[in-house]
Amino acid sequence: MIITLREKSSQQQVDHLTAWLKGQGIGVHLSKGEFQTIIGLIGDTTRLDTKCLEGLEIVERVIRITEPFKSANRKFHPLDTVVDAGGAKTGGGHFALIAGPCSVESPGQIFEVARRVKAGGATMLRGGAFKPRTSPYDFQGLRKEGIDLLVQAKRETGLPVVTEIMSANHLDLFGEVDVIQVGARNMQNFDLLRELGRSRKPILIKRGLANTIKELLMSAEYVMAGGNANVILCERGIRTFESYTRNTLDISAIPVIRELSHLPVVVDPSHACGVAKYVKALSMGAAAAGADGLMIEVHGNPADALCDGPQSLTPDQFDDLAGQVRRIREVAAP
Amino acid sequence: MIITLREKSSQQQVDHLTAWLKGQGIGVHLSKGEFQTIIGLIGDTTRLDTKCLEGLEIVERVIRITEPFKSANRKFHPLDTVVDAGGAKTGGGHFALIAGPCSVESPGQIFEVARRVKAGGATMLRGGAFKPRTSPYDFQGLRKEGIDLLVQAKRETGLPVVTEIMSANHLDLFGEVDVIQVGARNMQNFDLLRELGRSRKPILIKRGLANTIKELLMSAEYVMAGGNANVILCERGIRTFESYTRNTLDISAIPVIRELSHLPVVVDPSHACGVAKYVKALSMGAAAAGADGLMIEVHGNPADALCDGPQSLTPDQFDDLAGQVRRIREVAAP
Amino acid sequence: MIITLREKSSQQQVDHLTAWLKGQGIGVHLSKGEFQTIIGLIGDTTRLDTKCLEGLEIVERVIRITEPFKSANRKFHPLDTVVDAGGAKTGGGHFALIAGPCSVESPGQIFEVARRVKAGGATMLRGGAFKPRTSPYDFQGLRKEGIDLLVQAKRETGLPVVTEIMSANHLDLFGEVDVIQVGARNMQNFDLLRELGRSRKPILIKRGLANTIKELLMSAEYVMAGGNANVILCERGIRTFESYTRNTLDISAIPVIRELSHLPVVVDPSHACGVAKYVKALSMGAAAAGADGLMIEVHGNPADALCDGPQSLTPDQFDDLAGQVRRIREVAAP
Amino acid sequence: MIITLREKSSQQQVDHLTAWLKGQGIGVHLSKGEFQTIIGLIGDTTRLDTKCLEGLEIVERVIRITEPFKSANRKFHPLDTVVDAGGAKTGGGHFALIAGPCSVESPGQIFEVARRVKAGGATMLRGGAFKPRTSPYDFQGLRKEGIDLLVQAKRETGLPVVTEIMSANHLDLFGEVDVIQVGARNMQNFDLLRELGRSRKPILIKRGLANTIKELLMSAEYVMAGGNANVILCERGIRTFESYTRNTLDISAIPVIRELSHLPVVVDPSHACGVAKYVKALSMGAAAAGADGLMIEVHGNPADALCDGPQSLTPDQFDDLAGQVRRIREVAAP
Repeated sequence: MIITLREKSSQQQVDHLTAWLKGQGIGVHLSKGEFQTIIGLIGDTTRLDTKCLEGLEIVERVIRITEPFKSANRKFHPLDTVVDAGGAKTGGGHFALIAGPCSVESPGQIFEVARRVKAGGATMLRGGAFKPRTSPYDFQGLRKEGIDLLVQAKRETGLPVVTEIMSANHLDLFGEVDVIQVGARNMQNFDLLRELGRSRKPILIKRGLANTIKELLMSAEYVMAGGNANVILCERGIRTFESYTRNTLDISAIPVIRELSHLPVVVDPSHACGVAKYVKALSMGAAAAGADGLMIEVHGNPADALCDGPQSLTPDQFDDLAGQVRRIREVAAP
Repeated sequence: MIITLREKSSQQQVDHLTAWLKGQGIGVHLSKGEFQTIIGLIGDTTRLDTKCLEGLEIVERVIRITEPFKSANRKFHPLDTVVDAGGAKTGGGHFALIAGPCSVESPGQIFEVARRVKAGGATMLRGGAFKPRTSPYDFQGLRKEGIDLLVQAKRETGLPVVTEIMSANHLDLFGEVDVIQVGARNMQNFDLLRELGRSRKPILIKRGLANTIKELLMSAEYVMAGGNANVILCERGIRTFESYTRNTLDISAIPVIRELSHLPVVVDPSHACGVAKYVKALSMGAAAAGADGLMIEVHGNPADALCDGPQSLTPDQFDDLAGQVRRIREVAAP
Repeated sequence: MIITLREKSSQQQVDHLTAWLKGQGIGVHLSKGEFQTIIGLIGDTTRLDTKCLEGLEIVERVIRITEPFKSANRKFHPLDTVVDAGGAKTGGGHFALIAGPCSVESPGQIFEVARRVKAGGATMLRGGAFKPRTSPYDFQGLRKEGIDLLVQAKRETGLPVVTEIMSANHLDLFGEVDVIQVGARNMQNFDLLRELGRSRKPILIKRGLANTIKELLMSAEYVMAGGNANVILCERGIRTFESYTRNTLDISAIPVIRELSHLPVVVDPSHACGVAKYVKALSMGAAAAGADGLMIEVHGNPADALCDGPQSLTPDQFDDLAGQVRRIREVAAP
Repeated sequence: MIITLREKSSQQQVDHLTAWLKGQGIGVHLSKGEFQTIIGLIGDTTRLDTKCLEGLEIVERVIRITEPFKSANRKFHPLDTVVDAGGAKTGGGHFALIAGPCSVESPGQIFEVARRVKAGGATMLRGGAFKPRTSPYDFQGLRKEGIDLLVQAKRETGLPVVTEIMSANHLDLFGEVDVIQVGARNMQNFDLLRELGRSRKPILIKRGLANTIKELLMSAEYVMAGGNANVILCERGIRTFESYTRNTLDISAIPVIRELSHLPVVVDPSHACGVAKYVKALSMGAAAAGADGLMIEVHGNPADALCDGPQSLTPDQFDDLAGQVRRIREVAAP
């Protein structure tokens, strides 16, 4: 970490700061330029609070040379992490194909979709039981009943299940869930992340709509700091000014995360674009760019469903997508 | 609400939809244009899920004529809501001047700031006990101890206190807190909002860094739907590409919220810009634009503090700001 | 187009508006709902100015059912447009591989890169002669001399050349240039676009850093309205809050543009991410998602160059990228 | 300027860089830390191209300590610049109240508005003759005829006039125009800015919809580098995700620009929000925050006009606004 000081810093202020830094166990290397005094910090600076330092009158700016994330940092863990969820592996060459409806609606609906996506090559089943909705008047999901249905579908098909949690208070309902999803709106719900760090279940963290990759990795760090290394990152689109798509899939996040971190990164093109007809092209693009998996919304009968998003594929469309993705990976897999 | 249908919609699909809508107790008015069939919905459509409808194959788009928020909507509640927090009123002509440090650090620190801001004209004391930090390694606040110190400062000065909650599990610690703050990162933590709807304490909701005013009002709706009408909205800056300020204060949110809702809107210029030297100008601007209050970060000795933001004012700077804001309000108050 | 009127509109105002619309040759279909009066417009509404209509006191909102672009609209031109630039075709199954340095620096530099990228499979040579720079003190390009060098490189290698124009006053210098590029910062320089509509040369329009796809298509419309149908659209990344990449490649723009328009869409991953090590992954992703071409920055010796972007590939890296892209297209090409 | 080098930089590469820097007349101060080598640059680094340096393999990052703008920088010109346009002063305590219609439509319209806004206290008249429109099919303005009408209105009322230029080729039409406006979409039309630097007329530069304050100052630098110091900066709102307002007025730009630059900064609340009913509150806010002026859209009869924006005030509303702004400035003027 480098701290550049303002021209008018008094010697006393500089001593005050360097003394405090040494007190934090940080090595200090002072370099007085003609116009600029720079402090080089040596040692583990991840625990230093950049905002605190920038708050000091004498500090002009603070530049981190090393990233603030440690457990998620590939520098300290060169090999890809492989997350095993009920037998389904993600990362390190294992491709996750997670498919299912936006919301669990009924036994018939979820069982049929489960059978179809398994036949199409899905490695995991997704389905929403707790639904984060902007409006308190919108359908909030079947909650406990939805999780029970997912677990039954898992027993019938053998597909491990992924579903979203909205409060640590519901954790006991997730006993038979294989991957616990943290939604985009809760990406910085730090108390929830801390609780999930106490669990040993795989946690899939979705990137927030206006969060940076660094912030996503820091949220993973919250879970990992608690001792849970089974984290899957999910790029699901960010907010931009484009309106033909609901959000904008940040495909660059794939190579960036693969370089910075050893954690697997999967892509959710369905929520990223919000329009079924674009999901296939984005899935092929994500696979070619090196994603460790895809999360695809599939519904038995989108046209009839009165509560599924416009981004759902039919099982037939999913079969087609899965085949194309396989062909892409044969030539592109890293 | 207006639904425009795609050209190729079959009569059967249209009947299926209109029947379903009537089943929801909605009046339906069909208008077949030469190129376009439009369905006008009559009645309470706030409970309809726009996303669901857009999911239908035959639906081209759904346009809401009335806003999706009801309890927070000025249309159904023309008079300004006045929130009373331990005697300090906000809204309806009552101006809230909330001041205090970013974090509660020690008895000496909080008591001195409390005395100084009260002398300067503050109507409430703010201070962070639970701190939402991007990094799990950063200082997380004094938590329970911090709340105890705030409450003592309240007893000493008589200033009602405002502090942030990060999890519904901590609610019992907030018994003597006068205003519970929901931070920007938790603005869409719907489970937390729902829990706070069961409380009767005033809730101050900060706008998320990339959330719209409509989303902020929908979050207020979550609290109000639970029966708690004591909601204060807080504009604290949104993410933009500008980098000289940490965020961009959306001053337009003041007249927009005052028109759409009866709830008071206060402005936090300290976090919006993140730079102490700009706080006074933004405070004057917000007061002139019609804000119902300000939330200002004040620290006894910013230069010495090793854990406060660069946006803190000294008590003397706060006195100056408070005086200017009073003068502005004398000529500008709505 | 649909116009929804405010509740309190007087009959006289409505008559005034409908009369004016009919005067514009638009068919009008009035539908009075219980709470809402809606005007359905029939005919060619592309010439209507939405902003004007929204300016009327009685108008609540204006909703376009048909897109405002005509010449660029696939609805009126179902077949892919194939742009022929000096023999190099783009669109309709023809893949453009445009490569070369950010700036033309010297004969040696440009000739060597030209030979190398041609050997690697490039179909066109790119190189900047007029450089749009944020600072008036930065290198502005070799200007006329740069274009002369490009043209010589074209004669030596047979590769058609692409270079950027910054002012219509320079048009006479572009006589032997095969594709004239409009840079992101000039995407809405409408006078320049209008001038280029008078030319018959292929025009490559780069999407602005914060422009929507619709705005990009409207800029193409400016050129086409002048009679020049040879337009290539280029997605080169948009501004977001992500900082690991210079901009964010909007890969969704590929399927969206392919659906809305018949014009070819190429992708510039080099400027989109601004980091050489991510260019290959993004190129593979763009090819898999259906792009009609790529624009890649290649420099003979990036490490030595003192004026090329950090996003330049070496010729060897370009060869590798080109091979991978070919393999992707064999399985993915639409 | 500070350059931090990558760990693996070879001595030869470092020598190559330092030699090149010295060749540019820059003093070099090398500081080798335990993990990090830092180069401190001494002298005039404004002419160095940050992007070039970041392009070097051995460079990790480049940090500017001094801003890249010189002529616009308050550091080198502490006193406020006062721009005199036909007798109307802006800056240094002189408040500009620029008012008029979005577009010049007819003699009757512009003469009446001119008389009314002058009576209301306007110091300059605005009106669009060349209109930048997203669509080639929208009304493009009266062009030369519009400028002639403005000049006649100036003769009748004595109000200096402000109008937008879209191409340097039209400069000869602006002989009697007092302030030439560069619109948001042309803020980075560097060729146009360079041409305007050759003029001696006051230039009002509007901030681009997604441009930073630094980029706005760099555009001013283009004009000033040509020898024209008569530059007025205009904040007119930036693109955000908020949709109740067309753009988001960045009120923080006022104190930020006043600190960084000596140039006057005016605010255009009409285009920033795009809604007449919010213009008054934003104008009062901007005046209280220290703006050097306001640019307000006023139309004789907005309800009747079939081509003016929804943001226009009536002359009566303008009178009211002007009075409130005067009262605010009496207590708030810096």
